[in-house]
Amino acid sequence: MLERERSEILDEIRRFARGIYEQLVGHEFPRVSIPDRSTSNIIFDPQKRHYVLGPKRTVRRADNVKHIRSFTNLVWVAYYVHNLVKAGKSSTLRDVYYSAEAFDIKFKSQDESDEAISDFEAILNIPRERLGIFPEERSAIFGDLTIEYTCAGYEGQRLNLTSHPDGVMIGPALATSNFVSTSAERVIVIETGGMFTRFVEERVDKKYRAILIHTAGQPPRATRFLIRRLNKELNLPVYIFTDGDPYGAHIAQVIISGSANSAHIPDLATPDAKWLGVWATDIKRYKLPSDSLTSKDVERLHQMMRDPRYQSSFWQEQLETFLELKRKAEQQSFSRYGLTYVVDKYLPEKIRELERG
Amino acid sequence: MLERERSEILDEIRRFARGIYEQLVGHEFPRVSIPDRSTSNIIFDPQKRHYVLGPKRTVRRADNVKHIRSFTNLVWVAYYVHNLVKAGKSSTLRDVYYSAEAFDIKFKSQDESDEAISDFEAILNIPRERLGIFPEERSAIFGDLTIEYTCAGYEGQRLNLTSHPDGVMIGPALATSNFVSTSAERVIVIETGGMFTRFVEERVDKKYRAILIHTAGQPPRATRFLIRRLNKELNLPVYIFTDGDPYGAHIAQVIISGSANSAHIPDLATPDAKWLGVWATDIKRYKLPSDSLTSKDVERLHQMMRDPRYQSSFWQEQLETFLELKRKAEQQSFSRYGLTYVVDKYLPEKIRELERG
Repeated sequence: MLERERSEILDEIRRFARGIYEQLVGHEFPRVSIPDRSTSNIIFDPQKRHYVLGPKRTVRRADNVKHIRSFTNLVWVAYYVHNLVKAGKSSTLRDVYYSAEAFDIKFKSQDESDEAISDFEAILNIPRERLGIFPEERSAIFGDLTIEYTCAGYEGQRLNLTSHPDGVMIGPALATSNFVSTSAERVIVIETGGMFTRFVEERVDKKYRAILIHTAGQPPRATRFLIRRLNKELNLPVYIFTDGDPYGAHIAQVIISGSANSAHIPDLATPDAKWLGVWATDIKRYKLPSDSLTSKDVERLHQMMRDPRYQSSFWQEQLETFLELKRKAEQQSFSRYGLTYVVDKYLPEKIRELERG
Repeated sequence: MLERERSEILDEIRRFARGIYEQLVGHEFPRVSIPDRSTSNIIFDPQKRHYVLGPKRTVRRADNVKHIRSFTNLVWVAYYVHNLVKAGKSSTLRDVYYSAEAFDIKFKSQDESDEAISDFEAILNIPRERLGIFPEERSAIFGDLTIEYTCAGYEGQRLNLTSHPDGVMIGPALATSNFVSTSAERVIVIETGGMFTRFVEERVDKKYRAILIHTAGQPPRATRFLIRRLNKELNLPVYIFTDGDPYGAHIAQVIISGSANSAHIPDLATPDAKWLGVWATDIKRYKLPSDSLTSKDVERLHQMMRDPRYQSSFWQEQLETFLELKRKAEQQSFSRYGLTYVVDKYLPEKIRELERG
């Protein structure tokens, strides 16, 4: 993390602490105001084209016996995060949960400590990754992008992301790095490891001037931040290539429009990103080997038809086509036409289609 | 892959094909002899200290109607792999499954194509990774080891594995690379991403001259090969750090002694690797936050007590202690004592203990 950013974050945390301190000194029971993260306050913002929190707030008060537990949890999280940022270290949601024990804060389960962290994110309007708290999962990246690390011990050290053909992990070091230079003209986000390796081997990075990101299923938030940064800072269009099933469409949509769970986090969605495929209509068009939809898939598709994020004619057509065909197809089903078909035929056709608008 | 290795593998595949061809030309129904991979032929070899196949073989004959399907599958896999190795490409188990469709080979499910690949591995006595077939999952590595790639397009290019603090992925490129130089004196294999990042941040690679490997749960076979190579080629002791529960012990044991599923694969186990922890006895010794064993954990522990791989007094004591305590503890539970305790106290104590013998 850059020194400037660190001291800004520390200022924010201290502002929060000072609020409580001043109430105590003024002989008041302290209270804190928290943006309301309940469903009734989660709104799909058509201007911003992603989920945001509405204006509602809730108040936690130390003189309400029902609030004391969550109030204390929140204050402890603030204390923990302050130390973490000061030390310039990173940790995980799980670490936070266990670290509490030493302070006789007994979280009932990790859910409870995760909740307190989400509240604190919402109060500061800063995502936990910038506070040094990362999840377990890791995605990977490959392509012509030179980054410069800002993390302790590596400041100023650079890496070009074509240095390792299997991809490098997207963890705290990459998430906090700066972009130095790139020749890439687009970003391709890929759901499965098999397809990511195929793209690297076929040099999609060179042939299509693309930065490749492997999400390994639903991408962690640090990866979604990175995708947004590539789009906003470098002005690169983003294409998302997933399996052709409800889960794949959902992966794409969460990158594009965010999720209700993270409505309280700014700057996470990439509304200009586009789903490259596998579209429901691709199953017909490319005569892909496919599987039957399960009853759960069908149920999920009906839910999605009503979801505000899927109201465009493009998405409605795709969801309807899944239901009509009653079939789904994996990315790797293109192997039916040989290993390189997906790169030689499918990818250029789809990119052309998307870039025409 | 090196040219020499490629032509050796192609020779082996052609030898297999020639056997069938010569039977056909001699007007015989072709048959092939396959090492028997059934449970009755899987033996724990106390000399080698890992699972191996016994001497039994089975014969698949084209004049037996019950054998025709698996015989054909096997011949097609040989054909596919021959093309793959010739082209110097990699693929996944899933790719193989889908690729068959273009040849009107209809595998009922991926299980069936996986079976044919395992048979072919056993016949050639060559693991599928060396034939270019990888699974989806990826582990990661970090530490002072310089590798040189042998994969197409990157031959001769080098990378030092401290270049990226989040770790680089262990995929086909890393699996086929050569080791050039290292200052490391040991390898530490780590189950969870959170602990891996902690170790990198605390510079365990420097302080303990260690190469760090993140398995992300049960390590893929390519990672187990790599661990063995680090142990055999570079003569580095290997320590495995997992959660302190039956699953963590199992992860360690599969690295050490192999699994029944891969008894037909040579050179996969690392019998000299050691489980560093979290031992059942560590839960008491370090007063770790712990959880109750589930009934499934208890059942699993009783199975393990009878498993030939767990017969040493060390393992028996650990399994008994789990059952006595009725508790398990995660790697990250050390956070209870602060984020760096695990690196400053636990790790040096355990390494000292293991290196004393």
